[in-house]
Amino acid sequence: MFKLYYAPGTCALASHVTLEEAGASYTTERLDFKSNQQSSPEYLKLNPKGRVPTLVTDHGILTETPAVLAFIAQSFPKAKLAPHEDAFAFAQVQAFNSYLCSTVHVALAHKGRGYRWAAEESSFADMKRKVPETMAACFALSERDMLNGPWVMGEQYTICDPYLFTVALWLEGDSVDLKTLPRVADHMKRMSERPAVKKVMGEQQAKAA
Amino acid sequence: MFKLYYAPGTCALASHVTLEEAGASYTTERLDFKSNQQSSPEYLKLNPKGRVPTLVTDHGILTETPAVLAFIAQSFPKAKLAPHEDAFAFAQVQAFNSYLCSTVHVALAHKGRGYRWAAEESSFADMKRKVPETMAACFALSERDMLNGPWVMGEQYTICDPYLFTVALWLEGDSVDLKTLPRVADHMKRMSERPAVKKVMGEQQAKAA
Repeated sequence: MFKLYYAPGTCALASHVTLEEAGASYTTERLDFKSNQQSSPEYLKLNPKGRVPTLVTDHGILTETPAVLAFIAQSFPKAKLAPHEDAFAFAQVQAFNSYLCSTVHVALAHKGRGYRWAAEESSFADMKRKVPETMAACFALSERDMLNGPWVMGEQYTICDPYLFTVALWLEGDSVDLKTLPRVADHMKRMSERPAVKKVMGEQQAKAA
Repeated sequence: MFKLYYAPGTCALASHVTLEEAGASYTTERLDFKSNQQSSPEYLKLNPKGRVPTLVTDHGILTETPAVLAFIAQSFPKAKLAPHEDAFAFAQVQAFNSYLCSTVHVALAHKGRGYRWAAEESSFADMKRKVPETMAACFALSERDMLNGPWVMGEQYTICDPYLFTVALWLEGDSVDLKTLPRVADHMKRMSERPAVKKVMGEQQAKAA
């Protein structure tokens, strides 16, 4: 039994979709970022970083999307969400997800969370102006060198796919034209048709409303 | 047989130490960041991201420190560098390394690589000023909540240790006083006494000279 702490519109969507794809038994707890619930003393006891996702498992608490995704995949091998039997293929999955968390997500965070790395309003505005350029560069690289198609790793859907989908959902807000990224756009369409994605997005939106 | 592309003073040190700890057969290729060798057409063919580390393996090319470390550990199970037999413990290793790459390394990169996320000199200076604060916060969290001792995961040395050591080496340049971080300082001392670390650091410094 798992419990996932998430907030709508965040990278926790990837973990939520993966729980659903895995056929896991789980509950969710929605955090309200507007009232800064992720910094409440109760939540910081679970996750001292004050971020999402946080996954409560029978073994303990897990954070960080690449680790959470890999753990769900390993806990439900029949769902075949990662190539566990092939160390190199598994490392490629980890490398892709690591790029998303350390480069792409970080590039985007400079739009609204510049205060993490600077103090002046002028710097925040400067960072915000550069986001379309950095996000376009990140996705151009994904389009050209990483997205094998039809899924990220090729014929087999893996834990790379909901994570790419989650980050790609942010593109529209960053003035990146999906027409310049036909393979990413095709991947998004394919993802949005998956029953697990429809169910989870419906649930997150209904709870948020 | 492996080939590791690295530059001195970068996060590639963690992968280099891990190849040594694993007892792997490997060669190294030093990149000169000052002459921007990481952006040469030859190197971009290997790693289109233009970063280090890049690990050339018999199966293909791997990038991203958390993935490279996990792959080396899985390729040399006798070295016991990761708890492969325990999915939750392995996920905790991945979560720690993911935190280092997506939060701690990123926080530090704002010291000298602000151009990745902004355009104005005033923003670069602002980012640089904040680095001691963000690095202190990251390491205070590691000291308090993550470093079990004597090694990151407890009694067993893992692939978390050379990565923490690598990032902690940057602390001095960031005006973070190691006296405020006794457990991190103890970990650094313990790491610097390991034969693999001595050998690799000696080699990187000799080649750099």
